[in-house]
Amino acid sequence: MPVTLWFVNAIEKLHARMAELSDLDGVHSLLVWDQRVMMPPEGAPGRAQQLGTLARIAHQRGTAEEIGSWLAKLDGVPLDELNHDIVRIARRDWERARRVPEDLAGELARAHADGMESWRLAREHDDFNAFAPALTRNVELARAYGECVAGDGESPYDGLLDDYDFGLRTEDLHRMFGELTETLPPLVADGQLHSPRHKLQVPTAAKQAAVEGALSRLGVESGSWRVDVSPHPFSSRIGRRDSRVTTRYTDDDDLLALVISLHEYGHALYERQVDPRLERTNLGHGTSMSIHESQSKLWENHVARSPAFAEVIIAELARGGFKVTPSELHSALLGVEASAIRGSADPLTYPIHIILRFELELALIDGQLAVADLPAAWRDGMRRLLGVQVNSDALGCLQDIHWGAGSFGYFPSYALGCLIAAQLWETIEAELGPREDDLRAGEVAPIQRWLAEHVHRHGRRIDTLPLVAQATGAPLGAAAFLRYVSPLAGR
Amino acid sequence: MPVTLWFVNAIEKLHARMAELSDLDGVHSLLVWDQRVMMPPEGAPGRAQQLGTLARIAHQRGTAEEIGSWLAKLDGVPLDELNHDIVRIARRDWERARRVPEDLAGELARAHADGMESWRLAREHDDFNAFAPALTRNVELARAYGECVAGDGESPYDGLLDDYDFGLRTEDLHRMFGELTETLPPLVADGQLHSPRHKLQVPTAAKQAAVEGALSRLGVESGSWRVDVSPHPFSSRIGRRDSRVTTRYTDDDDLLALVISLHEYGHALYERQVDPRLERTNLGHGTSMSIHESQSKLWENHVARSPAFAEVIIAELARGGFKVTPSELHSALLGVEASAIRGSADPLTYPIHIILRFELELALIDGQLAVADLPAAWRDGMRRLLGVQVNSDALGCLQDIHWGAGSFGYFPSYALGCLIAAQLWETIEAELGPREDDLRAGEVAPIQRWLAEHVHRHGRRIDTLPLVAQATGAPLGAAAFLRYVSPLAGR
Repeated sequence: MPVTLWFVNAIEKLHARMAELSDLDGVHSLLVWDQRVMMPPEGAPGRAQQLGTLARIAHQRGTAEEIGSWLAKLDGVPLDELNHDIVRIARRDWERARRVPEDLAGELARAHADGMESWRLAREHDDFNAFAPALTRNVELARAYGECVAGDGESPYDGLLDDYDFGLRTEDLHRMFGELTETLPPLVADGQLHSPRHKLQVPTAAKQAAVEGALSRLGVESGSWRVDVSPHPFSSRIGRRDSRVTTRYTDDDDLLALVISLHEYGHALYERQVDPRLERTNLGHGTSMSIHESQSKLWENHVARSPAFAEVIIAELARGGFKVTPSELHSALLGVEASAIRGSADPLTYPIHIILRFELELALIDGQLAVADLPAAWRDGMRRLLGVQVNSDALGCLQDIHWGAGSFGYFPSYALGCLIAAQLWETIEAELGPREDDLRAGEVAPIQRWLAEHVHRHGRRIDTLPLVAQATGAPLGAAAFLRYVSPLAGR
Repeated sequence: MPVTLWFVNAIEKLHARMAELSDLDGVHSLLVWDQRVMMPPEGAPGRAQQLGTLARIAHQRGTAEEIGSWLAKLDGVPLDELNHDIVRIARRDWERARRVPEDLAGELARAHADGMESWRLAREHDDFNAFAPALTRNVELARAYGECVAGDGESPYDGLLDDYDFGLRTEDLHRMFGELTETLPPLVADGQLHSPRHKLQVPTAAKQAAVEGALSRLGVESGSWRVDVSPHPFSSRIGRRDSRVTTRYTDDDDLLALVISLHEYGHALYERQVDPRLERTNLGHGTSMSIHESQSKLWENHVARSPAFAEVIIAELARGGFKVTPSELHSALLGVEASAIRGSADPLTYPIHIILRFELELALIDGQLAVADLPAAWRDGMRRLLGVQVNSDALGCLQDIHWGAGSFGYFPSYALGCLIAAQLWETIEAELGPREDDLRAGEVAPIQRWLAEHVHRHGRRIDTLPLVAQATGAPLGAAAFLRYVSPLAGR
């Protein structure tokens, strides 16, 4: 009688299900991309129904009983490294999803939809009270959800963090953000004096030429990319060879279109360079929000805003008929300005905006801060951390969609992305040599290859903190970022 | 004890499943639209995977055992008219799908994918022999499929016809097409003498102005429509208020962009005007291929090509900087020319192209014609019916994708669409009065309303033949069409 490989059937079924979920994820991305870029506005209600149906099906197929039975059959079975990781992550995802009662999952989805609409109206009318009930509900549900998914002895906020950066703990954030809170505010004060920000008035045609020219130097071509326009720029992975980024050309800050383009490019490049062997498995995506944000921030802060790449930008703007000097461009891209708005913040002040949001959402989830007290706490924080007077909630605690959408534990990844980007960049320059000459010529292939090898190809096989440690040879910390921003303050 | 409405649960579950399937159908439409209009070419393999996964899920959800149990519970239960139709069509669809063994369904899908690729290459190299094996397989599988789904005493081809026009029988086609085969060829001979076709050279900018202007007169606005460009124009219903049509501007026939636009508009208008109460049910779509084609042909033949609407077109072309006389436009839009190509055929010769395809595919399915003999039979038929010498298979039996895609029983709907359009148009003019004055002014609202009331709103509640009889007061026949084309032949 031949030896029966009784687990082969289970691993095959698991592969097929993971491939299906991966396809549904790509379909979801296309629906959202189309909604934000192409869809006629009156299509919105129908699209919401389609997205709801797709999410329900993906949830059912991703949390089904049978996955548990395949995983049970595979328990302790010796597998090759790739299958070992597929099973490990499948088990983690499945167990985590199964901890959330179906009623709570449904309530969360409804509350988030309501919350976004309530937030939208409240911001439009600068009326925090109109948003407070929905926010209260989102906070309560997030706390309940965090309690479900948190490990033993962990706080609800720890549980929430795992959704964005598995393995990250609140204490890690206290440590790193504490260091930034001490160090950054005096740098901001210096920066505003020594290197104030100046805005440029750039005609749209020149901006478009610069965006197209810069992206084309980075390898964006029409065979497997799309570049479009949307009010809220984003990056989309529809398929492994179907990357789409958007930018916008209407803004106060006239070079934001370019900075945003390279930011979104960084997200897209990460997804494109995941090991093709991981395609249509549960590992074939970026591993976490922080690592993702580090990829966008690396291209934004260390390429797009760099004095070396400025030469490329100046040339591309000139092709579009706009002349600018290096020092004008430098002060537009790297000048320091404490402002109330996160979305257009410079590299030095940006993490401070995030730290405030982290402190406040942690206090909300822990029950230390009542929703009614949020606007005052926000104003206090902005004064304390940035010396900025906030004159309206619309430009204060209502400026971001995240809490309306029920996303708590998400904001920290924006600041961690800055830290990780700086730490990766120092490693890249240590290993490949200074990048100035290459960037001046628009040559980025060695950077792309380094990122593919040390970050991208792993997909979800390595979590945030071990990935940073492995790629850079040091635990994640604030030191590299502080070395990056100090010169911006004239230090 | 209260009376328990034990079937309420079953009808609710059926509604929910139908809503889900309707959403998945819209998602499928979006994936295909994007694939043909927006997707970067290297996204193709990933998109094929996504489409396959979506089709598999929709098939599973649409043929599931549980639907049968809900239908069994609802058997004989008195329901309101709408629910009665929902259950009736759900039963028909479910029973029909369940008759096809899963193996055969899988084989069909694979063979069609292979067949399309094989056809594409064969056409490119004008090499019928390269396509013959795939075509043979498609014919065999279509015959097997037709045998599965045909009713008692019906032929496989009858079974195939039901996929496109439920209730239509091969003998109906023999009757109507027989009449056309006798009547049309002499008309074509006369038409070529008395009203030969002349082509116009129209600059692209003028064509674009005419397409935009004409569609805008017909109510196409950016709130719930998109108009794009694709090599093979089509119409897409992404959602009830998200209609998308495409056209193309590169062609020998310089007014085809305009004619195609109105053709696709007719398809889209049908879907938009289905009764909103049918939305997200199994009835919320056009009822059949023939009725669908009648809607596109109505706007193509009876509006776009009409001498009255020509005044609108002339004005729109003039806005685009192109001057044309009514008689030049008339001979471009209504001139008669026997040619080898279906896609650009005039209204008089068009059905003859279809009749040839019907005769040949019926003979293939019935086993009267061997695949190897198809090219010769095609040439014979073109000589016999149109007096046209076919010089290559690429411009002969390889010109259409349908057989490569495994679609047998589909072609007849193209000719039936012409007949139904003519019959509807006569009824519209009988009920509303002659349309000339309105069309000269670009006024089509009464036509839209009439179509909504008599054709569109019913969705799938009424099948092709009863719908035509109800809307026009007469059974479907060729008489109205022959009255429409006779003047084109100078009769």
